[in-house]
Amino acid sequence: MSTENELHSTNAAPALLTVREQGSFAVGGTVIRCAGTYDPTGASEGGQTLHGDHANVSYQVPVEARRYPLVFLHGNQQCSRTWQTTPDGREGFQNIFLRRGFACYLIDQPRRGSAGRSTQPMTLLPRADDQTWFDNFRIGMWPDYFPNVQFSRDPTALDQLFRQITPDTGPFDVNVIVPAIEALFDKIGPGILVTHSKGGGVGWLSAIRHRNIRAIVSYEPGSNFPFLRDEVPPAMECAAGPLTALGVSGEEFERLTEIPIAIFYGDFIPEEPTANRGQDQWRVRLAMARRWAEAVNRHGGDACVVRLPDIGLKGNTHFPFSDFNNIEVANELSKFLASKGLD
Amino acid sequence: MSTENELHSTNAAPALLTVREQGSFAVGGTVIRCAGTYDPTGASEGGQTLHGDHANVSYQVPVEARRYPLVFLHGNQQCSRTWQTTPDGREGFQNIFLRRGFACYLIDQPRRGSAGRSTQPMTLLPRADDQTWFDNFRIGMWPDYFPNVQFSRDPTALDQLFRQITPDTGPFDVNVIVPAIEALFDKIGPGILVTHSKGGGVGWLSAIRHRNIRAIVSYEPGSNFPFLRDEVPPAMECAAGPLTALGVSGEEFERLTEIPIAIFYGDFIPEEPTANRGQDQWRVRLAMARRWAEAVNRHGGDACVVRLPDIGLKGNTHFPFSDFNNIEVANELSKFLASKGLD
Repeated sequence: MSTENELHSTNAAPALLTVREQGSFAVGGTVIRCAGTYDPTGASEGGQTLHGDHANVSYQVPVEARRYPLVFLHGNQQCSRTWQTTPDGREGFQNIFLRRGFACYLIDQPRRGSAGRSTQPMTLLPRADDQTWFDNFRIGMWPDYFPNVQFSRDPTALDQLFRQITPDTGPFDVNVIVPAIEALFDKIGPGILVTHSKGGGVGWLSAIRHRNIRAIVSYEPGSNFPFLRDEVPPAMECAAGPLTALGVSGEEFERLTEIPIAIFYGDFIPEEPTANRGQDQWRVRLAMARRWAEAVNRHGGDACVVRLPDIGLKGNTHFPFSDFNNIEVANELSKFLASKGLD
Repeated sequence: MSTENELHSTNAAPALLTVREQGSFAVGGTVIRCAGTYDPTGASEGGQTLHGDHANVSYQVPVEARRYPLVFLHGNQQCSRTWQTTPDGREGFQNIFLRRGFACYLIDQPRRGSAGRSTQPMTLLPRADDQTWFDNFRIGMWPDYFPNVQFSRDPTALDQLFRQITPDTGPFDVNVIVPAIEALFDKIGPGILVTHSKGGGVGWLSAIRHRNIRAIVSYEPGSNFPFLRDEVPPAMECAAGPLTALGVSGEEFERLTEIPIAIFYGDFIPEEPTANRGQDQWRVRLAMARRWAEAVNRHGGDACVVRLPDIGLKGNTHFPFSDFNNIEVANELSKFLASKGLD
């Protein structure tokens, strides 16, 4: 373990972070109003309101920030924690890109994490599913780690990763999340949206709706790829169930052809069908992403799908931005922004 | 509004924040194990685990940090967000004390905010209760603001305050929260615990259990004051229901006499019973806090209860650390630590 830790502690004693401004705020959301008159001596809902379904955003702005901030949106069962310290205790994308001069905005989407106040009820049932996540996250096939996986074998790292999981406090609803992201881009102006996993689908729909999203970098998007309505591909079958795509109007789709889009997937994605659910779903998601990027580009867009091992970055999990080689993964993001004149 | 904003924007263009290290991690928690064998082709819980009931902690360490970090614990229906940007957009205690050279650790207690993964089920039912909170928080008596309240009349500030509320994702349980706080103090070493409201009760129990808690500063603690078992006072009746105290052993109580404790309450706490629930509960909480501090001091302790208006700080709500005069409120915390040789 010590050898491994030493090997990967390349950013153990980094330079000081100099922050011009940092804080947090809520954006978006709605207000529910109960009929009646408020009674301060009772406990009734009459005449009262409920503010809910907002996103919560924490941010840091460095000195001499670059033109566009990076806005980070987590995936399923995750929150802004995703982008902070890595499970093995190194710096995550928040610090890495703050050091590179980007203002960083970290979203807790509505009904998740610190933005937990929902207008809809939810029953939370604890479920023992860590091993399912281990497979889904492509750290290995439980209980085995992939031999060259860029993830620590120290059990405390896996413990930390499992504890990043945090549930929905209301039903997942893109029609609630996307407006909150629109409200954020209204507030902060033009920026780059960086998404992970299920956040990818939210990202495409947000970019359709808000022109302040000037590019998208998506790590391992999983669902809700929006095709032109008459070009929606058939569902792709996999061991975890069928993967379907969305249909959108020509006007909506056109927006996705107007911004640069980079999609990154890690390693260990099988080429052929397999009965392992965690494995197999990535096979169809990668296939769908490729099909979608091809459609976007056929209509004049600028989308690329990069399998990290194809460019020499081997061993990445579902969380490339917190893997051992996350500095190299970050370099690819930086290169992408530079190549598009967006940094 | 603009006059008010100008008046209170005293920290609008502050100096740069210089951070030596920042990040986040989970501490404490438990692991539930399901019998059986994990099947990667199915969706059963058999052979799987659930990591839950941990706290999540985000932290920043400034250059040349003072000896003791400040560890901030939120109150009921709040999370670490409490200590960040104020509802009207100024710097909260996180930034203020980072600027004063303290490492700051912000807790999301188990089953709250980013630490949402609970081992126990929970049903979340949205409830319109903003006006109840407005009264509880002593911003006024809805819909009226207290005339000299240290809270913005800008409706966006109240909107932000309401959106700080985030629910429990599992049953509130001090026997889950306190061990997580112990695990935190195991990890970081000696420090000062700063609590708010319901976090106050958690704080007393944590200090009994962990000697790394070298002092407590508690804003508006509400419940769970631990008395010697044979000195527990009778419940105090109020419009929101009876306020009871806890009984603890002599050994446990002694711990609370060994550290300096400062308790601060804001303004607008009635002296006489009133039918307004939000108002009346603070009357008995303040009375219980005084009684408790008197008991601690009678047994050789060092606890003080300060009503901020009694020292010239008028108009404070239930959130003195984010009120307009939060710099002055912070000054009182600094003075307390200096007077005890803890800074």
